[in-house]
Amino acid sequence: MTDTTWTAPAIAAPSAQARAAAEERFAGLATPPGALGRLGDIGAWVAACQGQCPPTPLQRPRVVVPAGDHGVAASGVSAFPPAITAAMVRGIHAGGAGVSALAGAHGASVRVLDISVDDDLEGIPAEVKAHKLGRGCGSIDREDAMGLAETTEALQVGAAIVAEERTAGCDLLIVGDLGIGNTTPSAALIASILDLPAERVTGRGTGLDDEGLSRKTGVVRAALTRTEGVTDPLARLASLGSPDIAVAVGMYVAAAASGLPIVLDGVISVAEALVAHTLAPGVTDWMVAGHRSPEPAQSLALDHLGLVPLVDLDMRLGEGSGAVAGLPVVQSAIAALRDVALLADVMGGA
Amino acid sequence: MTDTTWTAPAIAAPSAQARAAAEERFAGLATPPGALGRLGDIGAWVAACQGQCPPTPLQRPRVVVPAGDHGVAASGVSAFPPAITAAMVRGIHAGGAGVSALAGAHGASVRVLDISVDDDLEGIPAEVKAHKLGRGCGSIDREDAMGLAETTEALQVGAAIVAEERTAGCDLLIVGDLGIGNTTPSAALIASILDLPAERVTGRGTGLDDEGLSRKTGVVRAALTRTEGVTDPLARLASLGSPDIAVAVGMYVAAAASGLPIVLDGVISVAEALVAHTLAPGVTDWMVAGHRSPEPAQSLALDHLGLVPLVDLDMRLGEGSGAVAGLPVVQSAIAALRDVALLADVMGGA
Repeated sequence: MTDTTWTAPAIAAPSAQARAAAEERFAGLATPPGALGRLGDIGAWVAACQGQCPPTPLQRPRVVVPAGDHGVAASGVSAFPPAITAAMVRGIHAGGAGVSALAGAHGASVRVLDISVDDDLEGIPAEVKAHKLGRGCGSIDREDAMGLAETTEALQVGAAIVAEERTAGCDLLIVGDLGIGNTTPSAALIASILDLPAERVTGRGTGLDDEGLSRKTGVVRAALTRTEGVTDPLARLASLGSPDIAVAVGMYVAAAASGLPIVLDGVISVAEALVAHTLAPGVTDWMVAGHRSPEPAQSLALDHLGLVPLVDLDMRLGEGSGAVAGLPVVQSAIAALRDVALLADVMGGA
Repeated sequence: MTDTTWTAPAIAAPSAQARAAAEERFAGLATPPGALGRLGDIGAWVAACQGQCPPTPLQRPRVVVPAGDHGVAASGVSAFPPAITAAMVRGIHAGGAGVSALAGAHGASVRVLDISVDDDLEGIPAEVKAHKLGRGCGSIDREDAMGLAETTEALQVGAAIVAEERTAGCDLLIVGDLGIGNTTPSAALIASILDLPAERVTGRGTGLDDEGLSRKTGVVRAALTRTEGVTDPLARLASLGSPDIAVAVGMYVAAAASGLPIVLDGVISVAEALVAHTLAPGVTDWMVAGHRSPEPAQSLALDHLGLVPLVDLDMRLGEGSGAVAGLPVVQSAIAALRDVALLADVMGGA
């Protein structure tokens, strides 16, 4: 594939009819008006995404984790060495990662995909590597992460993964992340889109010290300086992103286009959502924010998208784990809308 | 029973050994230090309460809802008429209440108990009324809610209920609430204990308008003026509480004494926890705050107890529903501590 242009698919809005029906149902529940708080909004959103009221309980909420290595990791922007990326692919595949544990507790399942890990991952089943695009990417402080053709290919791979997941019955999508150094391109993408300086968007990731933070801020600043004036969404993603990030962007766009509700995770996930929003603004109607991350860029991007996190637990693990921690709120909202008695029924039966 | 004194049972602290083992295990997980955020503290708390690390997944988290009517409801302190209390006992018993729906979504079960509902609740099974102490209570702006003997009896009933629940396998306790007007005694108890004026503690409950809020504040003020100088914990509970509130207080004390972890709900639950703390300070070691309520007194009392809510969803339904909305965070914490691989194992296996 050598396409250097990409056309976003049409994204319909979630059903206004189902949303109105949900709002009417909430108003008719045998509970005081508004007493369910945010569960009201979330429940109406799920109903709108499913196009029915009451919504069906989630049967197959799914966490897909595209993994990849990042050129910038060589510049000391992470507290961990790049080799950890491959080790963590093994960890998620074995079911022993943080996201695996939380998903197991809340009825979700996890799929990890090697998109651009700089390792052959010997012994790991072929299906994990079926969508592999390459090994690593350019160091964004000095060069583009990838070319436009690679970027459009990654977006298409994201769409293909969503198609696979839909076929398998996925009814809610969480896109996790895995890749040492990946908060650096995420911060750079958010800064570039929102026109913010490196200092405002750069955080400590999974545990940088002051010196590391200063180094990472310098890398983000160099990347922003290098790409000043790049405002085309696709060119920006190619310059400052990575194959795994582009796959996630493609997944968000395709999920929204195919009517799948999405729960966002931390700064990487929200950066990808923000990029998806620049490519196809309608995607955000299909999204809720799962959790608040301590990364400053995440809150800045969520504010821009008008999304308010479901939980705030100071988690900074990545992998989709924060989204899974917020998933039970969505399940609560569905249960409230489905299973609370209607006032009319209570009064009729009394 | 005519006891007018009451001696708190001994409350041991949760296991320091199990807590230390949990902290050590968290530090050894194949995740960056601290990346699990608050799940680390919550997981260590559950391990300490269970006295083992890793903790066992919750088998029977239980919501017990003591229901009662309040003399002050006749003064227009609620947006709803007192008859709703009995109707809601029927609603919870039938499984159609907000708390029923949320509990069903998160593996918890609900038991409603008529403690002092001003209704015979005809047709409702006898076991729901097995612990009934009377019908309603005094209007706290003008008279004591109940006598000291009734108060000690209610505390003992709370202990008996906890003993029943323990026998049935309960391994985490949520005490809900049900009773039109019950945020008024709750606000008064919190104000009396924390020495705060009525204006700071009085909220809109399930939906009072400005006029109602002003009326309710006046009732709380009158109750506080009437009981000025009452500082004995038992006398305060008798003056400003109610039988259902005293039963809940007894449940909290007995649960802590028998080593049962507790998730708190909204302002009524937290007022009861604060009263329990005045009777037996060790109770709070066994508690986490499930959710933040919009009632101002709840946050003031939580701050005093040093507890930070797990979720903040603007819920103000009562019944224990906010605690159940926070329960999945406890389940996430247990899963993280149990199911995430240890770094030593990952490295050994690589």
